[in-house]
Amino acid sequence: MPDDDDSSSAKAYLTGNLIYTESVTKTYYITVVVEKVLYTGKTRYQRAGVVVTPDLGKVLLLDGITQLSVSDEYIYHDNLVHPIMLSHPNPRKVLIIGGGDGGTLREVLKYKSVEKATMVELDPGVVDICKKYLPEVNAGAFDDPRTNLIFDDGRKYIETTDEKYDIVLIDLTDPVGQAAKLFTKEFYMSVKNVLNEGGGMATQSESAFFYKNIFATIRKTIATVFKHVSSTLAFMPSYGMLWAFTVASDYFNPAEISIDVIKARYERNKLQTRYYHPKMHQAMFILPKDLEEFLEKNDLPISTDEKPVSIET
Amino acid sequence: MPDDDDSSSAKAYLTGNLIYTESVTKTYYITVVVEKVLYTGKTRYQRAGVVVTPDLGKVLLLDGITQLSVSDEYIYHDNLVHPIMLSHPNPRKVLIIGGGDGGTLREVLKYKSVEKATMVELDPGVVDICKKYLPEVNAGAFDDPRTNLIFDDGRKYIETTDEKYDIVLIDLTDPVGQAAKLFTKEFYMSVKNVLNEGGGMATQSESAFFYKNIFATIRKTIATVFKHVSSTLAFMPSYGMLWAFTVASDYFNPAEISIDVIKARYERNKLQTRYYHPKMHQAMFILPKDLEEFLEKNDLPISTDEKPVSIET
Amino acid sequence: MPDDDDSSSAKAYLTGNLIYTESVTKTYYITVVVEKVLYTGKTRYQRAGVVVTPDLGKVLLLDGITQLSVSDEYIYHDNLVHPIMLSHPNPRKVLIIGGGDGGTLREVLKYKSVEKATMVELDPGVVDICKKYLPEVNAGAFDDPRTNLIFDDGRKYIETTDEKYDIVLIDLTDPVGQAAKLFTKEFYMSVKNVLNEGGGMATQSESAFFYKNIFATIRKTIATVFKHVSSTLAFMPSYGMLWAFTVASDYFNPAEISIDVIKARYERNKLQTRYYHPKMHQAMFILPKDLEEFLEKNDLPISTDEKPVSIET
Amino acid sequence: MPDDDDSSSAKAYLTGNLIYTESVTKTYYITVVVEKVLYTGKTRYQRAGVVVTPDLGKVLLLDGITQLSVSDEYIYHDNLVHPIMLSHPNPRKVLIIGGGDGGTLREVLKYKSVEKATMVELDPGVVDICKKYLPEVNAGAFDDPRTNLIFDDGRKYIETTDEKYDIVLIDLTDPVGQAAKLFTKEFYMSVKNVLNEGGGMATQSESAFFYKNIFATIRKTIATVFKHVSSTLAFMPSYGMLWAFTVASDYFNPAEISIDVIKARYERNKLQTRYYHPKMHQAMFILPKDLEEFLEKNDLPISTDEKPVSIET
Repeated sequence: MPDDDDSSSAKAYLTGNLIYTESVTKTYYITVVVEKVLYTGKTRYQRAGVVVTPDLGKVLLLDGITQLSVSDEYIYHDNLVHPIMLSHPNPRKVLIIGGGDGGTLREVLKYKSVEKATMVELDPGVVDICKKYLPEVNAGAFDDPRTNLIFDDGRKYIETTDEKYDIVLIDLTDPVGQAAKLFTKEFYMSVKNVLNEGGGMATQSESAFFYKNIFATIRKTIATVFKHVSSTLAFMPSYGMLWAFTVASDYFNPAEISIDVIKARYERNKLQTRYYHPKMHQAMFILPKDLEEFLEKNDLPISTDEKPVSIET
Repeated sequence: MPDDDDSSSAKAYLTGNLIYTESVTKTYYITVVVEKVLYTGKTRYQRAGVVVTPDLGKVLLLDGITQLSVSDEYIYHDNLVHPIMLSHPNPRKVLIIGGGDGGTLREVLKYKSVEKATMVELDPGVVDICKKYLPEVNAGAFDDPRTNLIFDDGRKYIETTDEKYDIVLIDLTDPVGQAAKLFTKEFYMSVKNVLNEGGGMATQSESAFFYKNIFATIRKTIATVFKHVSSTLAFMPSYGMLWAFTVASDYFNPAEISIDVIKARYERNKLQTRYYHPKMHQAMFILPKDLEEFLEKNDLPISTDEKPVSIET
Repeated sequence: MPDDDDSSSAKAYLTGNLIYTESVTKTYYITVVVEKVLYTGKTRYQRAGVVVTPDLGKVLLLDGITQLSVSDEYIYHDNLVHPIMLSHPNPRKVLIIGGGDGGTLREVLKYKSVEKATMVELDPGVVDICKKYLPEVNAGAFDDPRTNLIFDDGRKYIETTDEKYDIVLIDLTDPVGQAAKLFTKEFYMSVKNVLNEGGGMATQSESAFFYKNIFATIRKTIATVFKHVSSTLAFMPSYGMLWAFTVASDYFNPAEISIDVIKARYERNKLQTRYYHPKMHQAMFILPKDLEEFLEKNDLPISTDEKPVSIET
Repeated sequence: MPDDDDSSSAKAYLTGNLIYTESVTKTYYITVVVEKVLYTGKTRYQRAGVVVTPDLGKVLLLDGITQLSVSDEYIYHDNLVHPIMLSHPNPRKVLIIGGGDGGTLREVLKYKSVEKATMVELDPGVVDICKKYLPEVNAGAFDDPRTNLIFDDGRKYIETTDEKYDIVLIDLTDPVGQAAKLFTKEFYMSVKNVLNEGGGMATQSESAFFYKNIFATIRKTIATVFKHVSSTLAFMPSYGMLWAFTVASDYFNPAEISIDVIKARYERNKLQTRYYHPKMHQAMFILPKDLEEFLEKNDLPISTDEKPVSIET
């Protein structure tokens, strides 16, 4: 509850205000002052909270872990959606696993080429809370006639569906507990199985600095299933971390598609984006030297159903 | 003082340990657990501390503000030094303003072409502390015969020296108090004044997310003095921020130099770098769409001696 | 939002929950986990919040400073009200300055002898918030026909009223800013002025450990106006401090009244109390040796309108 | 490292300084700014640290838990030692279990009547650290010829020694892990076993507010072994808690010994104390009404070797 009127003063706001502390690692945290609490409660699966903060605007917390803020969700969603969508010549059917806030769906529906966007989310409570308190994130996407919203376990859905997709987008929380089975070789094989010819997938792939091993494991695991794998990085202030996103396909390497082709697709779909623009398309796949070398040379085991990658918390 | 032996446990370390909290903004902080305290004391100009942390390794704090950590200083120094040094065909004389830890000097001296590196640092105490507790940062740079270390006020030096330089590197703390006068139009004109024909400068230019206005003001101010201005961004975990670095010259636009030329210079100097590699040279200057647009269209005033840009603290 | 079901686990709750930090001093703080936020907003005079915490239950915060918790308000109110009320043979008219939560009023109205309880509170908003979110604190006191609630400045009221009182209870926030003028010699003289023969006053008098000087100054100032002055101490968990309460009268010294007399008054009024009982009446006025000596020998100046005692914040 | 010169400023010190956070409960903490770190390391049994803080002075931390501060250790030691020592007509032989800092020993040796003070401490490292960094706490007590310092397990010692004592003082850390066996009925029976006729024991007995159940269990357990049991309470700022101390004897009830007798013993021994004085001797045993009722009526199980009381952490 910092006062608007003295925003220019030198006063610290760590006392006299509600705050929340997010564990980046067990020995590195971010602490954020809360101006207002819009909601706290429980869904069937998790505790949920929506708070307003001076720097990040509205923030969604699930089980006490930051899921998104309205100030930087566009960075996340642009990195997850556009590099792969623009790498495909004509994505018509898209599957989203997770993504309960609707931001990924919103970006997918910007494509005129998209005929059907199926979103499989476990927790209806999250969708309800986001619709009510964070409507600007889905921006009407849940009401789009092309949207097919299914409440189900993503792993189960992908293993049993008969549908095929041009693009699969994996928009999940951290590989902790049950969620870990959505980061395994077996899961990625199921994803490949539902892809049409010419298709590809993208997933958030954790932090490239504090959880370099987790990122590398996810990427290496995906590389055992798909021919081309590449990643982009973006700083997410609400997470306090440099976040990685990984794109995979048997048919295309996004980093090798010419800017002119990307630009044409961008314009044909009349896209409006905030973070992504075509001229950065190839550039974003060039990783720092040390990270590139680490990804190439590490001897980490891949993630399997038997031994899934997992973040200790 | 977290125990090594139970590093795999789920225990939180916010209690039972020394910690420090760094103010990113007045309502967003990072908190870091301290394993060991190597030094606390005062130089002539400021309080100084060197602590060991589990995630960042050794950290240097001046007046309670994080200056560098051994885990990510290479990201900072690679961004500050190599994009501009490799944009110049043959940098022989380099001036560093600030940079008391010696990391910038270390990177500059990697160039075989460099004949003399003059470093003007205000606080001898910082150099002493860094030599003693953070020797891996300067890595012997202070003993290099090409090094010319001067303890003086950077602004005063640059206004009075008769020497000319190929490259000027500005490696300073935040524009707070006295330091603000090293971020003004008048200062950048003095910098231009000491440049040889073909020369250029680079400076750290604050955070591109939480202090977008400060970054934009610095860049805009530099653009009133130099013909070509471009910036790179890098996430600095020890600052908890996406950091901006700005390169300026009347003679070259680094983003337009071909990768082949950059590669040749890199190899000719037999450079070894950790973060930077030639193939990212052009890519790193492509900024996100919204930031690029903000930098082009903002109506922020420029920073002058009369009204310098300043971070309120 | 800690879970009830795992209350026995070893998990720390500093992350993943809302918390608030109360500044005890500038270098000593208490931090409390918040389970639920009942209210945040502004009255005409101050920011207000009501939160639920696991250890303290509901907590009222004004301008970010803890005012009371339902778990320990009875300790505060018993110390403020009963030592003086039972030291008077027959208190019929009582004046309360401040006390917007209604807890002091509640304790006063327990006395059958009380015919009229006038409460002068500056901020109607505080009364409204407490009635709505903390009804157990006033416990119906605001609806008692003997209650005379006036919204006014306490200092102004006491200087202009024609009414006389047997007991005056001063239940105020810290001596900061405007409130400081309710801790001066001139104010206590005005209080004396509205007292009936045989009457006395009691006031909260800040912390006896971290703000020993403030406590001693208040007590010394009162001692320039009243013949008998004595104090009790009680630990307030919600403040994280040992709190002092001071009783003053020209007619009685509460510590010298026999337990039998106190017991008889307690029974005659059919009192029910939680913290106070007659057998502790004399004992509570015996202070630790070092504090007693400090109160006797300090050379602190007294608090006057010209130079009021004040807590720096 | 807050600056002395601006101690009057309104600046907060939560950022820009080392701090430590002490867990009072899992949802209530105290946070203390550290000015200087004197020592961090490990003994054979535990991690140890000695830091300097603005409000508490030097603080000793063991395994990250506050053991004592030089600003309030006298409150603890006066409550543990003098109420029982003065309740005995002529204590000549005293046994201290724990008490590695030497403060309890120091108070015991103030008695001219004491001929031998045996102290059984588990961890020689703690004694070494306290001698070096906190010499004012033992104040030469370890060099007193009457001192008999033994490094051993307290439980084992008391079960095997042939010596008898007039007073046993139990000065231990919290009942966690191994230490829990020093809070059981079997242990108190062993204590009784080493007491001379006319003797008694005293122990710290945890917090009376946040750990009321633990305190009540310890007291109830002692009451199954000794005829008279009574307690005193004192606020310990360095713990952030109201601390309880419990006295037990088959021969005397300290609360019933007349002040005149106590005074005579105090003077005969030429005692100098800071917190305790004879006139508070009876008063300190009168507990608040609700706590007294809770101690009388609770149905908590007693603590036994099979099921010892224990604080979950």
